[in-house]
Amino acid sequence: MKKPKIVVLGAGYGGLVTVTRLQKALSVDEANIVLVNKNDYHYETTWLHEASAGTMHHDRVRYDVDAVINRSKVEFIRAEVQDIKPEEKKVILNTGEVDYDYLVVALGGESETFGIEGLKEHAFTISNVNTSRQLRDHIEFQFATYANEEEKKEERLTFVVGGAGFTGIEFLGELANRVPELCKEYDIDYSKVRIYCVEAAPMVLPGFDPELVKYAVAQLEKKGVEFKIGTPIKGATAEGIIVAKGEDETEEIKAGTVVWAAGVRGSSIIEKSGIENMRARVKVNPDLRAPGHDDIFVLGDCSLIINEEINRPYPPTAQIAMQQGETVARNLVKLVKGETELETFTPHLKGTVCSLGDDDAIGVVFDKKLTGTKASFMKKMIDNRALFMIGGPSLVLKKGKFNIL
Amino acid sequence: MKKPKIVVLGAGYGGLVTVTRLQKALSVDEANIVLVNKNDYHYETTWLHEASAGTMHHDRVRYDVDAVINRSKVEFIRAEVQDIKPEEKKVILNTGEVDYDYLVVALGGESETFGIEGLKEHAFTISNVNTSRQLRDHIEFQFATYANEEEKKEERLTFVVGGAGFTGIEFLGELANRVPELCKEYDIDYSKVRIYCVEAAPMVLPGFDPELVKYAVAQLEKKGVEFKIGTPIKGATAEGIIVAKGEDETEEIKAGTVVWAAGVRGSSIIEKSGIENMRARVKVNPDLRAPGHDDIFVLGDCSLIINEEINRPYPPTAQIAMQQGETVARNLVKLVKGETELETFTPHLKGTVCSLGDDDAIGVVFDKKLTGTKASFMKKMIDNRALFMIGGPSLVLKKGKFNIL
Repeated sequence: MKKPKIVVLGAGYGGLVTVTRLQKALSVDEANIVLVNKNDYHYETTWLHEASAGTMHHDRVRYDVDAVINRSKVEFIRAEVQDIKPEEKKVILNTGEVDYDYLVVALGGESETFGIEGLKEHAFTISNVNTSRQLRDHIEFQFATYANEEEKKEERLTFVVGGAGFTGIEFLGELANRVPELCKEYDIDYSKVRIYCVEAAPMVLPGFDPELVKYAVAQLEKKGVEFKIGTPIKGATAEGIIVAKGEDETEEIKAGTVVWAAGVRGSSIIEKSGIENMRARVKVNPDLRAPGHDDIFVLGDCSLIINEEINRPYPPTAQIAMQQGETVARNLVKLVKGETELETFTPHLKGTVCSLGDDDAIGVVFDKKLTGTKASFMKKMIDNRALFMIGGPSLVLKKGKFNIL
Repeated sequence: MKKPKIVVLGAGYGGLVTVTRLQKALSVDEANIVLVNKNDYHYETTWLHEASAGTMHHDRVRYDVDAVINRSKVEFIRAEVQDIKPEEKKVILNTGEVDYDYLVVALGGESETFGIEGLKEHAFTISNVNTSRQLRDHIEFQFATYANEEEKKEERLTFVVGGAGFTGIEFLGELANRVPELCKEYDIDYSKVRIYCVEAAPMVLPGFDPELVKYAVAQLEKKGVEFKIGTPIKGATAEGIIVAKGEDETEEIKAGTVVWAAGVRGSSIIEKSGIENMRARVKVNPDLRAPGHDDIFVLGDCSLIINEEINRPYPPTAQIAMQQGETVARNLVKLVKGETELETFTPHLKGTVCSLGDDDAIGVVFDKKLTGTKASFMKKMIDNRALFMIGGPSLVLKKGKFNIL
């Protein structure tokens, strides 16, 4: 009898938890496990705001896939996924093809610009290691150029962050901490810098406890962030952004740096594949398989699961992606062993902490509200836990955050 | 009797040697000494190629003026010089005016583009701390953007250095050492990078020993530098440069970074002032005074002195500027003390070393030819000597180069 071939697409949180669990649970005689990823490294998506602001080197937010997979059990293919052909049970890569018996789609998300004109061309995003170091270098170049140019363009020192959700707020926290360092580095007066947070929705961090949000806004304002809430961005240009002002009017905000941190959608590969989806996310069955595809599991940013309590989708988080990875791995083991009764996925939300820079945060952990250094400590513990889930104690020791205040 | 007021413009090598010698030789009762400088720091012009390539942090190439002047004897005015009015014996600053009895013009040089179209707008220069950190950040941004962009623009990784003189070659040495580091930092294949040195003259490092030049070219070529000698740059654009090819044809070299390192002229303030000059440099009298201006000394890049042996101007170097500063200070002391017989300046050339990166160099020191680590060691000793000349042993200990191989 032929050994089943399990192909996992993506080495993000969900994909790596799946693979590390599979390599433990299955022997080489039971299944072939293949991991496909664009890079030979995993990166901590939830730490990218730090690499983007320049408060942490990008090499600290990534580690080699080889550090956590067992190459005697897992075949690693470094390639870009171009398409999935469910009928032919194969995946098209930029370097060739790979066929599968079971497929795990853990390709992560992409930035969603909602068709706002100019954003794709003129705004930076916080999506991966490449976008982060580009944004970091762009910011430094703005300061250096301002210091050198004879006719000073004040807008070089203006930063617009589009979106007051999780990524936007966490990036603002780092940026506000970084700006005084940059001013010192480039001999620039701190008062010249302006940082705007522009958000279409009428609130900051929707879904978060209002008392904590108030704290976060006050802390960021103290560091110089100006909030423009209920202000939709209408477009981006080489000079800055256009925002709505009242009913029909618009206003220009000149800015040397525009960061779009307002939306994540699933992978465009999902859309191309023909698998049923909503904005590139698959509303998965309770066992995390794609409807109508008994051999395809989908998790992380590519999956959509509904929080029945409030009848809204769960936000795609690392926490949920990793929990999904554990379920997917257990369900694959069942299938390989010939069982047909699969496990149902239930998220166990342990809490959420939103960082406001290295020294501050807000969060709810086990139903307890936290702010300041306590919340910041919890945030670091959560970051370390993600390392632990995938690479065990040795990875925590190697890449963990121990700069506890 | 009124105390004479000595005003020194510029805190470069020549200006600072003048001031440090004056503050030792004259008591507060004998003269008022005023130093005017744009920044509150001095920078090592001869180290800027390192800050520009990113092989040394820019804070290491500068120190506070206050570290070497005695504020109880010297008044420091932080201001930009806008004009000199010899007839009115005053200097116009961006913050007001200052009058003088004796003036020392040590304003340094400016980049000379010889009217080549587009260079001012599109090429970087290695002129000061501001231009250096802008160039460094620009280079990093090119690597980061290349790593992130979907359609790779190969020309982002192409560097053109215009000029195979001292600055051009020293910068190429640093850049060639830096590129492998940058490739590692941004996950880029080293073979994608191209570095051109484009020089109109038919030789590299004119005036240098041909055997040493051959060594330098071979070493740089080994590190990936491609030389285009006898190739005049006709213009620069946002995309790269246009060079002459044969008699009438031209050729485009697409490059994300163009550095113009081919020419230095004196200060444009000299031209504005009406003092007789050639390309903003004053052909000074043997006592370093400007012809027709008994109260104005000119030194460093703003001065022009002829090497009678070969009937060509001495190249403006830090070594000569510092020696001039000593002569100017002694001559000013004579004038203050009522003497009329001034000292004649004679340069004492101790040798020249051209760096090829941290680990290599070529040079002639006390008539001995040196290459490799020996020359590199001598280069660092020369750099330390400049610190010693101005700030004594404590400045050498603070800012000196001790990374001896």
